[in-house]
Amino acid sequence: MYDLIIIGTGPGGYEALLNALRLKLNVAVVEKSKLGGNCLNRACIPTKYYRAGSHTIEKLGKIKKYGIQFELKSISFKEAKKYKDEAIGFLRKSLSQLLKAKKTPVYKGTGKITGKNRVEILKEDGTKETIEGKYILIATGSVPTSVGGLVPDGKYILTTENFMEDLEELPENLTVIGGGVAGCELGYIASVYGSKVSIVEIKDRLLPIKSISEEVSRNLMRRFKKAGIDVRLNVYVKEHYVENGKVKLVLSDGNEIYTDKVLLSVGRRPNTDSIDEIGIEKDERGFIKVDDYLRTNFENIYACGDVVNSPMLAHVASYEAKVAVENMFGKKNKKRDYSIVPWAIFTAFEIAHVGLTEDEAKEKGIDTVSGYYPYTYNEKAVDELETEGFVRLVFEKDSKQIIGATVAGIEASEIIHVMAYAIKNKMTAQEIHDFIYFHPSLSEIFVYATYDIVVGKLF
Amino acid sequence: MYDLIIIGTGPGGYEALLNALRLKLNVAVVEKSKLGGNCLNRACIPTKYYRAGSHTIEKLGKIKKYGIQFELKSISFKEAKKYKDEAIGFLRKSLSQLLKAKKTPVYKGTGKITGKNRVEILKEDGTKETIEGKYILIATGSVPTSVGGLVPDGKYILTTENFMEDLEELPENLTVIGGGVAGCELGYIASVYGSKVSIVEIKDRLLPIKSISEEVSRNLMRRFKKAGIDVRLNVYVKEHYVENGKVKLVLSDGNEIYTDKVLLSVGRRPNTDSIDEIGIEKDERGFIKVDDYLRTNFENIYACGDVVNSPMLAHVASYEAKVAVENMFGKKNKKRDYSIVPWAIFTAFEIAHVGLTEDEAKEKGIDTVSGYYPYTYNEKAVDELETEGFVRLVFEKDSKQIIGATVAGIEASEIIHVMAYAIKNKMTAQEIHDFIYFHPSLSEIFVYATYDIVVGKLF
Repeated sequence: MYDLIIIGTGPGGYEALLNALRLKLNVAVVEKSKLGGNCLNRACIPTKYYRAGSHTIEKLGKIKKYGIQFELKSISFKEAKKYKDEAIGFLRKSLSQLLKAKKTPVYKGTGKITGKNRVEILKEDGTKETIEGKYILIATGSVPTSVGGLVPDGKYILTTENFMEDLEELPENLTVIGGGVAGCELGYIASVYGSKVSIVEIKDRLLPIKSISEEVSRNLMRRFKKAGIDVRLNVYVKEHYVENGKVKLVLSDGNEIYTDKVLLSVGRRPNTDSIDEIGIEKDERGFIKVDDYLRTNFENIYACGDVVNSPMLAHVASYEAKVAVENMFGKKNKKRDYSIVPWAIFTAFEIAHVGLTEDEAKEKGIDTVSGYYPYTYNEKAVDELETEGFVRLVFEKDSKQIIGATVAGIEASEIIHVMAYAIKNKMTAQEIHDFIYFHPSLSEIFVYATYDIVVGKLF
Repeated sequence: MYDLIIIGTGPGGYEALLNALRLKLNVAVVEKSKLGGNCLNRACIPTKYYRAGSHTIEKLGKIKKYGIQFELKSISFKEAKKYKDEAIGFLRKSLSQLLKAKKTPVYKGTGKITGKNRVEILKEDGTKETIEGKYILIATGSVPTSVGGLVPDGKYILTTENFMEDLEELPENLTVIGGGVAGCELGYIASVYGSKVSIVEIKDRLLPIKSISEEVSRNLMRRFKKAGIDVRLNVYVKEHYVENGKVKLVLSDGNEIYTDKVLLSVGRRPNTDSIDEIGIEKDERGFIKVDDYLRTNFENIYACGDVVNSPMLAHVASYEAKVAVENMFGKKNKKRDYSIVPWAIFTAFEIAHVGLTEDEAKEKGIDTVSGYYPYTYNEKAVDELETEGFVRLVFEKDSKQIIGATVAGIEASEIIHVMAYAIKNKMTAQEIHDFIYFHPSLSEIFVYATYDIVVGKLF
């Protein structure tokens, strides 16, 4: 009997594995597809690869300012994909080498929990094998959802996973359904690599997410327009037809779009449909019910990541995996805590956020003051030819304690952690202001975003 | 009478100005050269501009992996300089516009303190003007030093300031005297932009600075060798001759170097030679003596930045300026505090540090444990094609409280602030490990650099 069976090797399963190996446990993993799960093979990592490429392509338009003269020969998504696959392959191989070095068995197939301590693996060849474990961790992630009768076929109607893993060449025209995170990330990539992109969003703004301020959506809208991306807000797809190798979309406002391919990015749902036959409790949306310690209704079966009802983010899955393994084998009961979860979006510019927006604070009855500073005059941003962006910091009005931060601009996804640590440590505007930051750095903007509050206004 | 007269508009003077304006004070500035001082015009900012260019040039060698095909036409330092001047000009102009908007008088000339409340300005045309202020801040910075009879002439023997501000074209051969921070930064830039570079260093390693670990020096040495930079350690220049438009350097080991130009980067000394005629106290090296509040022996005269004996860093100058102005006009006595000063170097790779190295801790009698993790497997580093680098974290052995951090690799100078905040808040390895970082980000490396200590070793 294994100490631990992990079903799924995405960011949750992988992190649980790392912990189990470091605790010298006897662990087995079950994986129905490629090692590394969606995050590594079809989501975060390939997205950021293509995004790094897109950002580099845009940067080429500026580098004469570094004295570089060149002639652009070609930009090829197909070539980029080849090397993207190589990069992902390198990371996947490092995982498989670790498993081999640690002699950790990998059961290839779909895992189903058939008993409190039993996992049955249905293999590709149709055979089954059953293994036993003291503890089981469900980390099977999520699958893309659909909307309005648009059924992904991998040819005309793609999921984000098709786009990331299978798509060899970009279509001339791509229509993205959903202007949320994935839609804005992949729509931007496709646009930079040469597709004519439309985005159809049912709500009244891009990134219509509570913790994203309208300020950010407005900036992105402006940027997308400049890039020639055709954004349709307040509409949805009423009907669609495949005609002469093209897709015709009839929108709710009566307009029509003819497009080569449709990319569906309207959300994900937990991948729990046939995870067990022993009565593991789920909620009405299919999320596995877990307690504060990530335990299901079976005391030795835990779940983490997109299968539980917490923020659907890779790093939340990893965090939960660490908490779950500690609760299984560690000394103390550790409660999961989502009070500080930084996140970021990589689209026309980088956007990162942690804590509360001003609107969210208001809803909670917290009075706020906020500090703002643009990237424009930041010396490092000038040196890097990347002066687009801003920082907004939100403070509780009386204590001036920081409760939220948004950064839009280069390296937003890194420097957000400085403010995440500030929130964690309940730092005040004065303390953030007084801190010594390297010059020239982007992080210095935090000094300037606190000046109005700490010292006084300039104008 | 002005509330405050600031002598020098570098990072110290500029920050003092910002504070004074926000406090609605009646302030005047004295500047003998260009607004923004050395940092903006001849040091930090142009260095990082050229470094961003150098990094971009190196990156070009990798971008076929993003599906980009191009033909390189030319790399021109001269062109880069033109745009560098433009970028610096933009920043300088924003400062001059601020001064104009606030109707702040700028006295162009060399300031000398001729009375407790009096500053005499010697203008370029030889005339003098005297102004009066309740408070005076000396922020006149530093000037390059020389060594071994090598006297800068701006033609064969250059200071770093000549290199940054005046140099229009790179020589075929450049020999850098001094393998410290500036030498490694400018030597690398010259090498990437096309010069054949030699570096002569009297000590036994590059960056022979206490707070830089040998590990970092070794990595840099390897990288410089790969780039074809000729590094000579444990030697100094014994003699030098100008012959046929070239400089012949005779080294202490008997070897000779023939070079087009010599770049002197052997340190700086405080620019205080004729700062006053009222007896402001200085130490034997020319640093102005100040108390914990940055006050000189005159209670209304303060000093900050390179003129006082504290780390010679632009951001320390800015910090001191804030402290000085607060002590002049604010409500409380604020002591200067250098316990947490992050700094960074931009050479073949980016290096950043904060707190203590393991060696420094040992000298202080502190037992340590340390955590290490390479950039190699960090998913963002892979996506960015920038997998060279590592993180080392130093903890007090028993408490596991973090006391130091070194990051070498891309964005080191930004993510170092996360660890600076960790040190500030006395966080432990466990707390750093448990924190949720965005995935994929470089900052996640901090989780992996704490795994051995918090959970256990993998092998």
